[in-house]
Amino acid sequence: MKALTEYLWFETKRRREYINITDEVAQLVRKSGVRDGLCLVNAMHITASVYINDAEDGLIQDFDDWLERLAPHEPSRYRHNLTGEDNADAHLKRQVMGREVVVAITNGKLDLGPWEQLYYGEFDGQRRKRVLVKIIGE
Amino acid sequence: MKALTEYLWFETKRRREYINITDEVAQLVRKSGVRDGLCLVNAMHITASVYINDAEDGLIQDFDDWLERLAPHEPSRYRHNLTGEDNADAHLKRQVMGREVVVAITNGKLDLGPWEQLYYGEFDGQRRKRVLVKIIGE
Amino acid sequence: MKALTEYLWFETKRRREYINITDEVAQLVRKSGVRDGLCLVNAMHITASVYINDAEDGLIQDFDDWLERLAPHEPSRYRHNLTGEDNADAHLKRQVMGREVVVAITNGKLDLGPWEQLYYGEFDGQRRKRVLVKIIGE
Repeated sequence: MKALTEYLWFETKRRREYINITDEVAQLVRKSGVRDGLCLVNAMHITASVYINDAEDGLIQDFDDWLERLAPHEPSRYRHNLTGEDNADAHLKRQVMGREVVVAITNGKLDLGPWEQLYYGEFDGQRRKRVLVKIIGE
Repeated sequence: MKALTEYLWFETKRRREYINITDEVAQLVRKSGVRDGLCLVNAMHITASVYINDAEDGLIQDFDDWLERLAPHEPSRYRHNLTGEDNADAHLKRQVMGREVVVAITNGKLDLGPWEQLYYGEFDGQRRKRVLVKIIGE
Repeated sequence: MKALTEYLWFETKRRREYINITDEVAQLVRKSGVRDGLCLVNAMHITASVYINDAEDGLIQDFDDWLERLAPHEPSRYRHNLTGEDNADAHLKRQVMGREVVVAITNGKLDLGPWEQLYYGEFDGQRRKRVLVKIIGE
């Protein structure tokens, strides 16, 4: 079994941001030398997501509006924010979008459908955060 | 390490449909010869889901109503549809239901709880789409 | 390849409960002897979740309120409950929170971010239910 572990760092300028990480992850798959296996990509922070969806700016804005409707930022709504935080909404938004993706590796490449793109979804940015990439296989 | 990669094809008659794929995936686990490992099953299209829940028609209708309430089809609500699409809602619905499941394989079988059933959830159907099954283990 | 399979049992006192299982899972990783690999942790019941988020009581109450707003318990709303059940809402809540997490194992330990904690989320408790832990790697 081969294994590769790498960490990607992010520090967004805005509170919420959506960053395409497909090429970076694809490059790590090449580096791993794995031909057949699994690639786990997960946010290591609980106010961020890794998810797979479309690289289309209109849709990304639709996601952002929709998440704000499902879990509004408005700090006074949430008990968590009594601890001095203002990011309770980010913990909720991340549950909708998910913590992680697991992607198959076939013939040495991410085995993605035609429109699948990997995204880092930040819901409480403006500080350094990490994403974990773990590749195992042969 | 053993590995098996297979693709399941779907073309639903309706826009939204929920199809039980448990038996097909269980058969691929047998074919793989893996006794102990992991089975990844994921939609390869970003307007569809693979999820695990109940094979009960009333609940499936409840899911469909609920998803329509959380993310209504109504095309004029979404910026994505300015590209000529009418399926922005399907991208959102799929985030609620998830892209993939990872199921343990124990003693050569899917290690499922008593009511766990694997489903393909289609939110923008009436065209050919794929699901990936990747099995690794020994 | 090494593999370990274990089942954790839960019987909550209340209908909905959120239980930190990080230490139990970490102990199973040690027991497995795996230095580099993947750890799958999933609910085996379709009205419960395994998810990763914060060990903060206010936030847990926020999650509970939010899930009740997205998918109210109110049994008469759901077709599924015509079967004699009263737990349709629990099937929906679990889709928001997710069925499973896949966590990397690096240097023999769960490779978690600073605030990541594994939780069992029960949405229809007061009976015995299981969580599966499957560890593979080398």
